[in-house]
Amino acid sequence: MMNTIGRLFRLTSFGESHGVAVGGVVDGCPAGIVLSVEELQGELDRRRPGQSPLVSGRKETDRLEVLSGIFEGKTTGMPIAFMVRNRDCRPEDYEALKDVFRPSHADFTWESKYGIRDWRGGGRSSAREHVARVVAGGIARQVLQRQGIRIVAYTSQVGNVVLPEEYVPDSVMDVEKSAVRCPHSRTADKMEKLITEMQQAGDSVGGVVSCRITGLPVGLGEPVFDRFQARLAYAMMGINAAKGFEYGEGFHAAEMRGSGHNDAFAWKEGKMRTATNHSGGIQGGITNGEEVYFRVAFKPVSSIRLPQDTVTRDGKTTTLEVKGRHDACVVPRAVPVVEAMAAMTVLDFLLEAGKYGNLTF
Amino acid sequence: MMNTIGRLFRLTSFGESHGVAVGGVVDGCPAGIVLSVEELQGELDRRRPGQSPLVSGRKETDRLEVLSGIFEGKTTGMPIAFMVRNRDCRPEDYEALKDVFRPSHADFTWESKYGIRDWRGGGRSSAREHVARVVAGGIARQVLQRQGIRIVAYTSQVGNVVLPEEYVPDSVMDVEKSAVRCPHSRTADKMEKLITEMQQAGDSVGGVVSCRITGLPVGLGEPVFDRFQARLAYAMMGINAAKGFEYGEGFHAAEMRGSGHNDAFAWKEGKMRTATNHSGGIQGGITNGEEVYFRVAFKPVSSIRLPQDTVTRDGKTTTLEVKGRHDACVVPRAVPVVEAMAAMTVLDFLLEAGKYGNLTF
Amino acid sequence: MMNTIGRLFRLTSFGESHGVAVGGVVDGCPAGIVLSVEELQGELDRRRPGQSPLVSGRKETDRLEVLSGIFEGKTTGMPIAFMVRNRDCRPEDYEALKDVFRPSHADFTWESKYGIRDWRGGGRSSAREHVARVVAGGIARQVLQRQGIRIVAYTSQVGNVVLPEEYVPDSVMDVEKSAVRCPHSRTADKMEKLITEMQQAGDSVGGVVSCRITGLPVGLGEPVFDRFQARLAYAMMGINAAKGFEYGEGFHAAEMRGSGHNDAFAWKEGKMRTATNHSGGIQGGITNGEEVYFRVAFKPVSSIRLPQDTVTRDGKTTTLEVKGRHDACVVPRAVPVVEAMAAMTVLDFLLEAGKYGNLTF
Amino acid sequence: MMNTIGRLFRLTSFGESHGVAVGGVVDGCPAGIVLSVEELQGELDRRRPGQSPLVSGRKETDRLEVLSGIFEGKTTGMPIAFMVRNRDCRPEDYEALKDVFRPSHADFTWESKYGIRDWRGGGRSSAREHVARVVAGGIARQVLQRQGIRIVAYTSQVGNVVLPEEYVPDSVMDVEKSAVRCPHSRTADKMEKLITEMQQAGDSVGGVVSCRITGLPVGLGEPVFDRFQARLAYAMMGINAAKGFEYGEGFHAAEMRGSGHNDAFAWKEGKMRTATNHSGGIQGGITNGEEVYFRVAFKPVSSIRLPQDTVTRDGKTTTLEVKGRHDACVVPRAVPVVEAMAAMTVLDFLLEAGKYGNLTF
Repeated sequence: MMNTIGRLFRLTSFGESHGVAVGGVVDGCPAGIVLSVEELQGELDRRRPGQSPLVSGRKETDRLEVLSGIFEGKTTGMPIAFMVRNRDCRPEDYEALKDVFRPSHADFTWESKYGIRDWRGGGRSSAREHVARVVAGGIARQVLQRQGIRIVAYTSQVGNVVLPEEYVPDSVMDVEKSAVRCPHSRTADKMEKLITEMQQAGDSVGGVVSCRITGLPVGLGEPVFDRFQARLAYAMMGINAAKGFEYGEGFHAAEMRGSGHNDAFAWKEGKMRTATNHSGGIQGGITNGEEVYFRVAFKPVSSIRLPQDTVTRDGKTTTLEVKGRHDACVVPRAVPVVEAMAAMTVLDFLLEAGKYGNLTF
Repeated sequence: MMNTIGRLFRLTSFGESHGVAVGGVVDGCPAGIVLSVEELQGELDRRRPGQSPLVSGRKETDRLEVLSGIFEGKTTGMPIAFMVRNRDCRPEDYEALKDVFRPSHADFTWESKYGIRDWRGGGRSSAREHVARVVAGGIARQVLQRQGIRIVAYTSQVGNVVLPEEYVPDSVMDVEKSAVRCPHSRTADKMEKLITEMQQAGDSVGGVVSCRITGLPVGLGEPVFDRFQARLAYAMMGINAAKGFEYGEGFHAAEMRGSGHNDAFAWKEGKMRTATNHSGGIQGGITNGEEVYFRVAFKPVSSIRLPQDTVTRDGKTTTLEVKGRHDACVVPRAVPVVEAMAAMTVLDFLLEAGKYGNLTF
Repeated sequence: MMNTIGRLFRLTSFGESHGVAVGGVVDGCPAGIVLSVEELQGELDRRRPGQSPLVSGRKETDRLEVLSGIFEGKTTGMPIAFMVRNRDCRPEDYEALKDVFRPSHADFTWESKYGIRDWRGGGRSSAREHVARVVAGGIARQVLQRQGIRIVAYTSQVGNVVLPEEYVPDSVMDVEKSAVRCPHSRTADKMEKLITEMQQAGDSVGGVVSCRITGLPVGLGEPVFDRFQARLAYAMMGINAAKGFEYGEGFHAAEMRGSGHNDAFAWKEGKMRTATNHSGGIQGGITNGEEVYFRVAFKPVSSIRLPQDTVTRDGKTTTLEVKGRHDACVVPRAVPVVEAMAAMTVLDFLLEAGKYGNLTF
Repeated sequence: MMNTIGRLFRLTSFGESHGVAVGGVVDGCPAGIVLSVEELQGELDRRRPGQSPLVSGRKETDRLEVLSGIFEGKTTGMPIAFMVRNRDCRPEDYEALKDVFRPSHADFTWESKYGIRDWRGGGRSSAREHVARVVAGGIARQVLQRQGIRIVAYTSQVGNVVLPEEYVPDSVMDVEKSAVRCPHSRTADKMEKLITEMQQAGDSVGGVVSCRITGLPVGLGEPVFDRFQARLAYAMMGINAAKGFEYGEGFHAAEMRGSGHNDAFAWKEGKMRTATNHSGGIQGGITNGEEVYFRVAFKPVSSIRLPQDTVTRDGKTTTLEVKGRHDACVVPRAVPVVEAMAAMTVLDFLLEAGKYGNLTF
């Protein structure tokens, strides 16, 4: 709850966009895992802005510092605390926003709830908080890799540019080829073009991230409330700007008939498989061993340069013109965040299922 | 987790479709609330099958028995346990399904996970478990009503029959007019016709439930992981057959631009309001006082009469022909379940926000 | 929290002393366990009043009814709900206590907290709530027995009658020989005599329950907050009338020196053992494979027949003379409750340690 | 669970004795509180070793660094992360302990559980982890002070030197007068003398910390499992070296009669009070507005200089002679830790009772 996610593998996230640092504490990581801090730094670098002309020009040299929980290169079963100090802070960029509520931002609701708001760059409501998730997800991913579980997310829609369904990436590398993180280069080009247009127009655009998880054992997920898809949806809807979640056939299933949607069982090589996978790898809340795939919709970024009507803290109508550095589309940078949230969720279920004990006896 | 949902207002659900009883324990309900057991029975009756030719012919005379937590007509702050005994049980209908896994049902995954499966009518994976949710949601709803919070769900899509967006129900009564629970009679007729066709064909069809929550205060929801929408998504994706969740503009937001999606603030009658409500009443994970609206997609029911290929427990290919009584579309009966899950989620947030103390001093 | 205890093996308790029923829901019990309902009934019978002249004359014919979670004699991994209907209810016995707060009872604090109080026989604050614990503990005990873990509690002190330390029971049967549940018959006689005196005097007396757990594996317990002893203390201090908890040398350790308290390690039959066991089987919060032993202090029962000064709800001084049936010493009936709470705690830790998976693949 | 304590006010603790840093994240602190980092540093200084000849000579210049959650001197409702870098590390002091299990330490159990152990100065099992608790407790204390709630702990026993019951400290300052933290100077002198003797003998001695909480409102605590005393016991038994917990009359209650233990109610100045306070301020698990007092027993420190028999990782018997800097009695330094754990527990209950909302509307 609050700033902690997970049951047995848990991240507690902390930090503000323009405070001292952002970071987190991962508790419940199995002991004895060789953990590469370099790989974690690599995950962070993927999320960082300033990688391409498409994403915001802020230069966050995010250097990961691990504070605990690793001994002689291995996890000890104890909490792994980490942080990234904030460097490229220009709070003065935001001083003008102190007394005004930016439309569709968290300014008004946070201030209403807490009576106080760190207005410097969105404070804790900034997507910079995702740094903690990407590191924690990276830890989870390194554990999952040892179990043969692989998670690949990618941009499947930007505005009205939609990736045809048949193009499915083979690997993270396949996705990283393009700045928009779309595995099909022709579609990627169109997406980039649209984002550039939006940038020039001072506007923004939404999109969709798709994600695929392979190598899952049968039996993850609890059958009633804590279904695999319920925890996945919870994790995804906790990402900034996420507006929708669907798995398997998702909303398309509403139009289908049972005879077309049902996945016939098939016995293949001594294993129970399904002939089709409309179910998206989950039946009755529990994984069936097939690929889990899902999609997350993101709204267009709220920070746009076009002038907007709004209201100040004391109820005066005003026009807002935001300067500064902002992404015109959040989706490419959301890709590693979706992967991170998925990795944490999967490992949590794996531990709950007793598939990865932290005992050696 | 597992069979409990909620943080401060919590339901623990129990019972199998053809066991002794289904029921639950509600813990954390504020004390001193006048609680109408008749109204709870009314909610149960809405979920019951056999209400119309559209839904399954099982006659479940679900009589609610409250076991604790109410004294002189009022809640005491102590757990409210309740149960509904199972009556119309014909386990022999299911004996044939003992050793075979029904496609897209929970049979295979549950048996793989637990090594044992109550095969009588789906056991605990049956939608009959929803009885517990509807009663608990009814308790929550009675508390919310005192706070002026209103929740109305309705069928907005069945197969390819879609309710035009402009038709929004005024009240639960508006929804209850039609057997499919669609507030627009012309659309309702088309939906009924489609469901009847499916029934006759031995097939089934999916659909969408929409839901609207009004009267919410500003400030519900936690800002990082435990966002209002994240817990709502978790609750909805824990309903049998749910495949997708979206709120506000949802997946449509992916196509929008920031200039079109942002909700300008407007000062009206001494209150901060928004001129539009693309955000769906939530900003930065916290309610902003506008209407919260969301949609849940449901797959077509897996139980169809048409013959299907499947595999037995010992790996033999076989053809399944399910007899018995089944809904051709789960959506009309899912409407009260969506409302119940929403009511529990909202009350939980209300209690967390300290808006409804259970102390009198 | 609230009316739920446990993390992976969880009891949610419900019911009032003079309401419809008391009962509970056990969630997280491993699947596939042959569970004897007769044995559970036997545990209940041990707790029941009216077994001997020493304990209160109420005739509670507690008949256990299991509502869910068992199929063909085995646990299914799903919630096990159970209840015991209240029969021998005479609420009129308590009518006189409606408006007066009994000294050292929960009357005043509960009414202050909740603004409402079920005054019939203490309502939910009655020790009758322990019925739920004894059943749930009995379920846990049956699972633990399969793992070779044994829990035996016994009365080690009543008033100033103290069982000499050298008398340690061999089994539950050893304890059940006497009505006071003290394994040493000479001490048992003295205890019974003292309790009878108290009964005749209209007074009551306190005591101590000791408990021993054998057969535990090395490695149960979490090292920082969730130490084996911390969760054990939590469970015990949640029993009605408990005033203190100590394990190993307990308060006596305060007088000892390190050279006398430290347990030297010794290698015996290929196993790490300790030469002595001052630690009480736990080091650094984690079991070391030796016997865990602990003691729980209970206050004298608050319900006495002697007249007492008190105050009514509207602040008037009055004299209270309680009639009715009450134990003069709670300790003999607390013995099975201590065992039950210990059994639940141990099984919870066993599941957390991944020593008892609920998956079969 | 694991490295997190608390429900609504929560500390997640991290760090090893000789790693990069120890620290924690406090989540759930109410927003808008003026928080003095200097006072927090002061609490840390109280716990620090090297303050007097009585305690270990390690020079831990513990400088507190706050990383998040404070804006313009006030809490924001967001997580307060903090850390203290380890400086005076001499891991080479411990190299000799790499392969041997120290008697009554956590070495064997941790290594058995996790298969890996940071052997540098006890790693995470070191009392240095208490740094996180003292800071978090200090934050809680500053919030409680605004509510008029005061917590004072003190040394009431060292070995066989017992503070007479009538000496109760008036304030923390009263306690801080002596190096052993005993408010009665004559007793303090005897305690110091005993500790010095133990130091010279290379041995150690146990003791008791008493604690008193005043200014509590009526109504804190949950009535069944989550009783005020149960959570307090859990918190205290999670402190290194704690062996027993009692509140009110504690173990002494076992010898008492109901007529002597019951606290008669008395109406004083328009308030319900009790004439005596044998109950220790809690009835039915809920505070009654009287002083809560309790005692925690601590064992003698396991690290002694006297030679001891033990066993190495590979099962060889050996004699251990520990060098290095160790306290001969843990109790004086445990005093601020007991206060910290009490402060966190009380604030958590206060928030649960809705007595301290974090909403301003």
